[in-house]
Amino acid sequence: MIDEILEVPDHLSVARADFSRALAWIDGGFVPLAEARIPVRDLGLMYADMTYDVVHTWRGGFFRLDDHLDRFETSCAGLRLDPGFTRAELTTLLATLVDRSGLADALVYFACTRGTAPPGSRDPRLASNRFFAYAQPLVLRGQPEEMRRGLHATISTTIRRIPETSVNPVWKNTHWGDFTRALLLAKDDGFDTVILLDHGGGVAEGPGFNVVAVTREGLLAADSGVLEGISCRTMMEIAGELGIPGRYGRLAPDVLRAADEAFITSTSCGLFPVTRVDGVPIGPGRPGPVATRLLNTYYRRKNDGWNITPVARLLASAAGRGT
Amino acid sequence: MIDEILEVPDHLSVARADFSRALAWIDGGFVPLAEARIPVRDLGLMYADMTYDVVHTWRGGFFRLDDHLDRFETSCAGLRLDPGFTRAELTTLLATLVDRSGLADALVYFACTRGTAPPGSRDPRLASNRFFAYAQPLVLRGQPEEMRRGLHATISTTIRRIPETSVNPVWKNTHWGDFTRALLLAKDDGFDTVILLDHGGGVAEGPGFNVVAVTREGLLAADSGVLEGISCRTMMEIAGELGIPGRYGRLAPDVLRAADEAFITSTSCGLFPVTRVDGVPIGPGRPGPVATRLLNTYYRRKNDGWNITPVARLLASAAGRGT
Repeated sequence: MIDEILEVPDHLSVARADFSRALAWIDGGFVPLAEARIPVRDLGLMYADMTYDVVHTWRGGFFRLDDHLDRFETSCAGLRLDPGFTRAELTTLLATLVDRSGLADALVYFACTRGTAPPGSRDPRLASNRFFAYAQPLVLRGQPEEMRRGLHATISTTIRRIPETSVNPVWKNTHWGDFTRALLLAKDDGFDTVILLDHGGGVAEGPGFNVVAVTREGLLAADSGVLEGISCRTMMEIAGELGIPGRYGRLAPDVLRAADEAFITSTSCGLFPVTRVDGVPIGPGRPGPVATRLLNTYYRRKNDGWNITPVARLLASAAGRGT
Repeated sequence: MIDEILEVPDHLSVARADFSRALAWIDGGFVPLAEARIPVRDLGLMYADMTYDVVHTWRGGFFRLDDHLDRFETSCAGLRLDPGFTRAELTTLLATLVDRSGLADALVYFACTRGTAPPGSRDPRLASNRFFAYAQPLVLRGQPEEMRRGLHATISTTIRRIPETSVNPVWKNTHWGDFTRALLLAKDDGFDTVILLDHGGGVAEGPGFNVVAVTREGLLAADSGVLEGISCRTMMEIAGELGIPGRYGRLAPDVLRAADEAFITSTSCGLFPVTRVDGVPIGPGRPGPVATRLLNTYYRRKNDGWNITPVARLLASAAGRGT
């Protein structure tokens, strides 16, 4: 196989983003993101009692919006949070938010917090849940040059991912103390990012991403104690179309280290090659052919409208319904 | 021993509290608590990346302020958070806050969040840390009648406390997903509160409290994977003065169930007797003589000024220093 060249868009960088367009919806109205605030007594802040999701738009259309809304609804139901909107209302709200921001390529964060309990109480059952959302310019994690170098990761030897027996990772949550601590220690040692193991010693996830190894048998995505990543599922689907087998399962650190290739998946990058783990090259120490083909296909398919729902169509549909 | 009668103050209830006095200090100024807000992009909200502490005032004086500030400083240092104030400045700020609120008996919450990272970034190292504080009327968890009934607790069989290998419990944090979930399930089943075990099966803690068993050998405070509670330490000290031995150690659920008495400790109640666990009475199923003596002594000592630092003295001292 002739190695393909990574075809990563280079116009979605922090330097070129116009953050003055960032817009929030909160407390029933639209405000510039920098002005969007929540009460300090919101239990989302006091006790990390909230859920959220992050979807992106690509050239004016949401990518896999329904998958993100499915996950958000699952998280809300599991955590007994009620955003106070129907699925159709949420869809229209997010579309309106993006439309008003004027952003074609946006990162759209939306959250439901437990809200504020009556004075003198912290009973979650008595709190009024709060929904808010914001759209900001999509900044790709991984500009082309960074993508070609790949991530230099470390596997934390001291900090393990919060186990499922304590906090259910399937309900997307803000319990990131393990990630943050491990990331700070990793940065101390000069690494780009960190991968956490579960308490059984298998690969779990990193701060905001799933981990995938490419071996002779195909893709192996770590599935122990992790969020069900939509970008990970996307790469699995693309791999399937390309005839590359893929499965979810236990990923031992040694299997990751010995893999032909490795990458992480997240909404902010699709995938990002991992080229070194604890200083040791993965395969040849540069992005491999599988990651390259997956990422190139990912962008080509998105450009073709695959899994894309145009914001304009959602707004026209909502107007037709009179909502 | 003749049983003493619980002498719990009855004037510090939600019904009698004037929450219009609740006052916050945030972004350099004082505002009514209901108006105190933080940006939705603060990493304290997005990733539970923050610490906090809660101290109370009693009849116009802070109770164990230095102990709470010691713990807050330890938490900040461990989590690499900088509130941006010296110890003396923090002390004066909290004293001024309470003084301005006009509250003699106040619950004072103060926090340092990671703050907001530059647009397009979530790197904790690039964020400007944020400090805020608020004072609200002290509402005793446990009015006299509730204290005499005691708490009916359950030990969660499905959810375990987040382990130390994931999030360090000594650095006071907002990772309460395990507590909140377990509390909701406990309330479903009609219990007042819930006690979580650690992953080794020993008693850890509950939502905002330590757990103490009273056995023939004296007090045994669960110390596995828990916050170092200042109210727990207070009860240990009072027990020592009363000639009741006390120690920290592993507390097995069976030892708790078979104890003569049990209680929880927290700032909002000092201690609160636990009279039933999973429906089974602890000892005679009502507050026992040890808990009663500890609580009565706690209130008498506080009324005598034990470990109390008058707010007025702190302000006079600050004025003398010209700060």
